[in-house]
Amino acid sequence: MAFDDRIDQALHGALSALGHQGAPPRLAAAIPYAVFPAGARIRPTILLAVATACGDDRPEVATAAAVALELIHCASLVHDDLPVFDNAGLRRGKPSLHRAFGEPLAVLAGDSLIVMGFEVLARAGATAPDRALALTACLARHTGAPHGICAGQAWESEQKVDLAAYHRAKTAALFVAATQMGAIAAGQDAEPWVDLGARIGEAFQVADDLKDALLTSDQTGKPCGQDAAHLRPSAVQTMGVDGAMQHMKDILGGAIASIPSCPGEAMLANLVLAYARKMTVLPMAASKDPA
Amino acid sequence: MAFDDRIDQALHGALSALGHQGAPPRLAAAIPYAVFPAGARIRPTILLAVATACGDDRPEVATAAAVALELIHCASLVHDDLPVFDNAGLRRGKPSLHRAFGEPLAVLAGDSLIVMGFEVLARAGATAPDRALALTACLARHTGAPHGICAGQAWESEQKVDLAAYHRAKTAALFVAATQMGAIAAGQDAEPWVDLGARIGEAFQVADDLKDALLTSDQTGKPCGQDAAHLRPSAVQTMGVDGAMQHMKDILGGAIASIPSCPGEAMLANLVLAYARKMTVLPMAASKDPA
Repeated sequence: MAFDDRIDQALHGALSALGHQGAPPRLAAAIPYAVFPAGARIRPTILLAVATACGDDRPEVATAAAVALELIHCASLVHDDLPVFDNAGLRRGKPSLHRAFGEPLAVLAGDSLIVMGFEVLARAGATAPDRALALTACLARHTGAPHGICAGQAWESEQKVDLAAYHRAKTAALFVAATQMGAIAAGQDAEPWVDLGARIGEAFQVADDLKDALLTSDQTGKPCGQDAAHLRPSAVQTMGVDGAMQHMKDILGGAIASIPSCPGEAMLANLVLAYARKMTVLPMAASKDPA
Repeated sequence: MAFDDRIDQALHGALSALGHQGAPPRLAAAIPYAVFPAGARIRPTILLAVATACGDDRPEVATAAAVALELIHCASLVHDDLPVFDNAGLRRGKPSLHRAFGEPLAVLAGDSLIVMGFEVLARAGATAPDRALALTACLARHTGAPHGICAGQAWESEQKVDLAAYHRAKTAALFVAATQMGAIAAGQDAEPWVDLGARIGEAFQVADDLKDALLTSDQTGKPCGQDAAHLRPSAVQTMGVDGAMQHMKDILGGAIASIPSCPGEAMLANLVLAYARKMTVLPMAASKDPA
């Protein structure tokens, strides 16, 4: 099964319990609204690609890990879009969750998605308890404080920002989780996979800065020009558009070079190249378009 | 060691990682602010009491479970206090977290505490992976959606409220988690312990309604009169003060009768009686005080 289908089928399965009797109907509607329709699903795809490259001997565990990671990512989008943070009205081409359901349900849907991520891992543990626990610890480390995406977002509430720590936590953390969890799900050592995740995350951050600076909301399905509006540090601001574009290519080259030697090495390199093309094609066109 | 000391020592241990280099300082300060000074720690105390009654053969697992449960409870207080919910300015006798640190950090501290709860369980899993996974599944079920405290809070965003489901999820869920997790941490079947948790939770809800109606902020360390202000259903509203008081005593009688036969049965009955006295003494005095 293609990674996309595997991820979406499993996400539907994870959310199916929300239809149970006794669930508050609006929360039960808000949670799937945060998860579908699919975004790029880039983090769980990387996770499954690494698991596959590592042999994927427990596909049900890798699938659960991919679902857990995507649920946490969706939770972070819902909370980051809140008026107290980005106050984003658009997400994946439709009204952000708090615009559609109100702020209380946006807070609670985000909370529920975080919990559900860990619940999915616990349920997958029946056949491989040690892997499920290692996956839980890895996902928690990259989600919470002091070094996960919560910490990353919290840097925006600081007067003095540690820029390296900010980017590492805000964006790279879930990419490192993706590569590490892929390895853990397949019973392999996670450590050699840190670099690949960190570099993809770094490239993704630069690509995001470029898209935010160069594209329109119609092209991205979310508000643009947010870095400048919120005075957030960005690669475009520090290196200019051409500099940022070159920087991203260099990082992706480093990412490919960092892939640990394994049977799926070529497949993974192709995946990174495909993402690189996807990440650059729109900003590239926009930067050449004087309109 | 007394339950209180055991819980507080372990909570300090769980939070110690926040001092690590690279953590955003204000988030690293906000998270302990949500956990200390101690509230009643009633949920983790019940958990440890049930674990003790069941033999407590893996005390480190029971302690981790108690910490995880309390962290989730603290997270729920932080998020429930937010302006979009109760807009509470006081909590445990000091400014609520969003008043002290701002709303963005209140959202993120709550998120981080949820994540940390599951992280603590995963770390405790080294010696007893199956118990850690069962504890994770149990805690998640009673925290998220469709039936946990997130769902409970979400009922307040519904036009038509299923009152039984609302109270079961909003208040009873974490008490059921407490008794069930105590049993699981000690390697016992969780099912026989559901009733005790549900009844303590129900009594606690009635006691809370009484305190909200009868006491002042000085006495409770949090805003009072909130049920009436937010038009929330309450036992005082439906049965009056005397009716609610009698109802609470009946429920606690039922709670004691529901304690499964075990070596710690008498100790648990005493614990419930002690809480009953604690829960009734202030409202009782207030209801007799015409001022």
